[in-house]
Amino acid sequence: MTSIDLNADLGEGFGAWRLGDDDALLDIVTSANVACGFHAGDPSTMHRVCRAATDRGVAIGAQVGYRDLAGFGRRRIDYEPGELRDDVLYQIGALEAFCRAAGDRVRYVKPHGALYNTAAVEPGQADAVVAAIIAYDRELPVLCQPGSVLHERAAAAGLTAVGEGFADRGYLPDGRLVPRSRPDALVHDPDAVVERVTRMAVDGEVVAVDGSVVPSPVRSICLHGDTPGAVELARAVWSGLRAASIQVRPFTRPIP
Amino acid sequence: MTSIDLNADLGEGFGAWRLGDDDALLDIVTSANVACGFHAGDPSTMHRVCRAATDRGVAIGAQVGYRDLAGFGRRRIDYEPGELRDDVLYQIGALEAFCRAAGDRVRYVKPHGALYNTAAVEPGQADAVVAAIIAYDRELPVLCQPGSVLHERAAAAGLTAVGEGFADRGYLPDGRLVPRSRPDALVHDPDAVVERVTRMAVDGEVVAVDGSVVPSPVRSICLHGDTPGAVELARAVWSGLRAASIQVRPFTRPIP
Amino acid sequence: MTSIDLNADLGEGFGAWRLGDDDALLDIVTSANVACGFHAGDPSTMHRVCRAATDRGVAIGAQVGYRDLAGFGRRRIDYEPGELRDDVLYQIGALEAFCRAAGDRVRYVKPHGALYNTAAVEPGQADAVVAAIIAYDRELPVLCQPGSVLHERAAAAGLTAVGEGFADRGYLPDGRLVPRSRPDALVHDPDAVVERVTRMAVDGEVVAVDGSVVPSPVRSICLHGDTPGAVELARAVWSGLRAASIQVRPFTRPIP
Amino acid sequence: MTSIDLNADLGEGFGAWRLGDDDALLDIVTSANVACGFHAGDPSTMHRVCRAATDRGVAIGAQVGYRDLAGFGRRRIDYEPGELRDDVLYQIGALEAFCRAAGDRVRYVKPHGALYNTAAVEPGQADAVVAAIIAYDRELPVLCQPGSVLHERAAAAGLTAVGEGFADRGYLPDGRLVPRSRPDALVHDPDAVVERVTRMAVDGEVVAVDGSVVPSPVRSICLHGDTPGAVELARAVWSGLRAASIQVRPFTRPIP
Repeated sequence: MTSIDLNADLGEGFGAWRLGDDDALLDIVTSANVACGFHAGDPSTMHRVCRAATDRGVAIGAQVGYRDLAGFGRRRIDYEPGELRDDVLYQIGALEAFCRAAGDRVRYVKPHGALYNTAAVEPGQADAVVAAIIAYDRELPVLCQPGSVLHERAAAAGLTAVGEGFADRGYLPDGRLVPRSRPDALVHDPDAVVERVTRMAVDGEVVAVDGSVVPSPVRSICLHGDTPGAVELARAVWSGLRAASIQVRPFTRPIP
Repeated sequence: MTSIDLNADLGEGFGAWRLGDDDALLDIVTSANVACGFHAGDPSTMHRVCRAATDRGVAIGAQVGYRDLAGFGRRRIDYEPGELRDDVLYQIGALEAFCRAAGDRVRYVKPHGALYNTAAVEPGQADAVVAAIIAYDRELPVLCQPGSVLHERAAAAGLTAVGEGFADRGYLPDGRLVPRSRPDALVHDPDAVVERVTRMAVDGEVVAVDGSVVPSPVRSICLHGDTPGAVELARAVWSGLRAASIQVRPFTRPIP
Repeated sequence: MTSIDLNADLGEGFGAWRLGDDDALLDIVTSANVACGFHAGDPSTMHRVCRAATDRGVAIGAQVGYRDLAGFGRRRIDYEPGELRDDVLYQIGALEAFCRAAGDRVRYVKPHGALYNTAAVEPGQADAVVAAIIAYDRELPVLCQPGSVLHERAAAAGLTAVGEGFADRGYLPDGRLVPRSRPDALVHDPDAVVERVTRMAVDGEVVAVDGSVVPSPVRSICLHGDTPGAVELARAVWSGLRAASIQVRPFTRPIP
Repeated sequence: MTSIDLNADLGEGFGAWRLGDDDALLDIVTSANVACGFHAGDPSTMHRVCRAATDRGVAIGAQVGYRDLAGFGRRRIDYEPGELRDDVLYQIGALEAFCRAAGDRVRYVKPHGALYNTAAVEPGQADAVVAAIIAYDRELPVLCQPGSVLHERAAAAGLTAVGEGFADRGYLPDGRLVPRSRPDALVHDPDAVVERVTRMAVDGEVVAVDGSVVPSPVRSICLHGDTPGAVELARAVWSGLRAASIQVRPFTRPIP
């Protein structure tokens, strides 16, 4: 039976501020990318989300980002590689504390925002993420885009690089995402989204904006949580996968 | 053979800023209270100090503080207990990442500054520190003042509470420290400091400012690192203890 | 003709995070307490709110708070008086830059959250706020509760202390607010709120929770912006005042 | 009589941390680039430095930087232009408050670190700095490198762009600085430094590393304050200029 993982960014509030509907998403996804305090996520939010995720059997990943609360981690920062490695290490460890408190463990690492985008194309920042994971625990998979520099470097270093697809993003013929500035950056029709996700899960491919079919070897699908209609779209994807007899479950293994 | 531990605050710089002479102190102390990023301590400093400590066989403790870089954790903050517990948990986990990278583990917890002082007298903040340790790892000792509320609450909760003495601080007849505002708050004469430390280590007592002898059941002595002459005083204490045939070693056990 | 000012906290988002409905409130209030970046409020939010306020003729006040983004300025911090004065000065100056950019000026100062509450009862923190205003511009009024320590100290120092009332808060017989932990802390009925506001504006008095009438010499009424139904309640107050032929206008004078 | 200004970065500590010897430098320089809290500089440090500068007749400039305490403003950040403009505006206003408290005003603006370097070559960030100054006060000069993009854009916008030279930095034949990674990046010999500064002040030119003479139309010389021997070198420059009968005074005019 075919299976796929659904992941989403969670715990992205800070103090008095909230972002997205964590509780609703936790009932849908099987992997939670939990913000670790550098671009978003305060300790009490992390604690609450880790507990809620563990209660539901949702796997917890460290959504690591630049140290940039004011910019939500969306602005590229020219880190020294060693500083970036250490910022990532710090965040993984911090999240691990709340996983332990909830009886679980950090199961994977996924970079956020500008770090995700930069590590996808620059060896320096990709290697810094890889070095942090190696220093912490070589068994931790890294969730990233297939074909990205991070995917390549992680695999070359002997780490488990897991590809993810994007439910509602348009793809270029070369497998990269359509930039958000273009009108075809997003797929809005729920039925189309469900169909795309199903095809990625079953056939490992996606139709690009020019109609060509491009390989998309993914074990997880990223759902967005902070856009209008995000929760409804996530539910539609979940239902569509079930209707297609595709099992929705974490791409990581449970802790023994 | 009598033994005692020497601890000091380390890694208390932040980014471009340094405080104290970490390297010199690491050659003297047997336990390093490493700042975890909330009142001081950036990830790269934490990484460097943890590696240097482990290389020298110095035990690493989590020096947890309030989230207050501007105030260096010296200003009391009225935390909600749950928020304080989570801030402490976060810091322990973050430090653990660098201990792991250095092949070691966090061996104990010691509150810093205003948290140290507040948890010594207020059950609410003391219990928050205790709750964080229980959530993370019940085996972690907490280093604090004998007779303090934190010491009592930790022990009552089944944790290992370890008493520490202060090498160069005057004591009141009730065992508390002389407030820093008083002229007899500090002991400046190195010989007197060495004699006091030796007496605490051997006899578990200290002479108060009124001449009375008060019990001081301690397994560790706190040395200051950021005052003028701090390193010289620390060296004098270390030499004095050796001259008195007192072994200087961590109060915690090595990781198996 | 009787007149009254309506004030509300605005610009309390930070980066990607929003709080309250700034635009809706700016169409109702005549004075905007703009967060200055320490407990909330990033520079671009401050810029946008100052411009929108000036466009509508809404007076801008500096809503100064503790340096505590994680706690939203709601946790008491034991500041040194000089440090608190300087933190307040810094915030006033920062906001002034955006007022200048919008062709206006900071017209008043109002402390936020735990600073508001602490300065209402402690001379040390009250004096720090007063010292900041004196250092910056003695002509700036401070908006605070009648009878509070801050009100007294500001007036004694020769500043203009302006009393404010709370539209939807219950009052104790001594003029203080009912603590939020009590069930009668909030007045929920819009008609009752309008009646109370009108009475404060016209007669300078309010009915306390025990039925007694207490003096409430206020020139401004504080409306909340971040609670459910806040905007509707604010509109009801505005309409009720108009229906009672009470002019709603800033308590400060326009810049010549 | 020829005159020149000497400027240095001041107030670059934060909270408990210090950097450089502010007091010694304030006795030498005629313009103080005061850090404004984003890359360094807490409010109380700003207050103290502004007062000390004003007491000595030293002109105060806003040393504006990226929001990056952990990186000391030395890491390039990809800001949105509007966000950068607003961060710069905020910092200018904040510093102005302490100038006012000291009876003075902000006299000029100088970007710090990575913002200095980026605005020297990128129109986007240069324009953001220019936009902030225009929004705040068109009369404020901007201190920057002759020939830089910031210099050009500021002048083109009608602002006063003032060129500065570097006392101890090697120059390339095209007028740019030798990158710090090269061994000839710094001039270490005090006599050589004094000679270079004198030539820049008198003849507006400097000898590049290849021996060619390049124009250096500067009205201010930047002295470093945080390197070993910095204060001694600064004193040597000051004495050398006096010996050459060159007046050392601010490039800005006093406040009337």
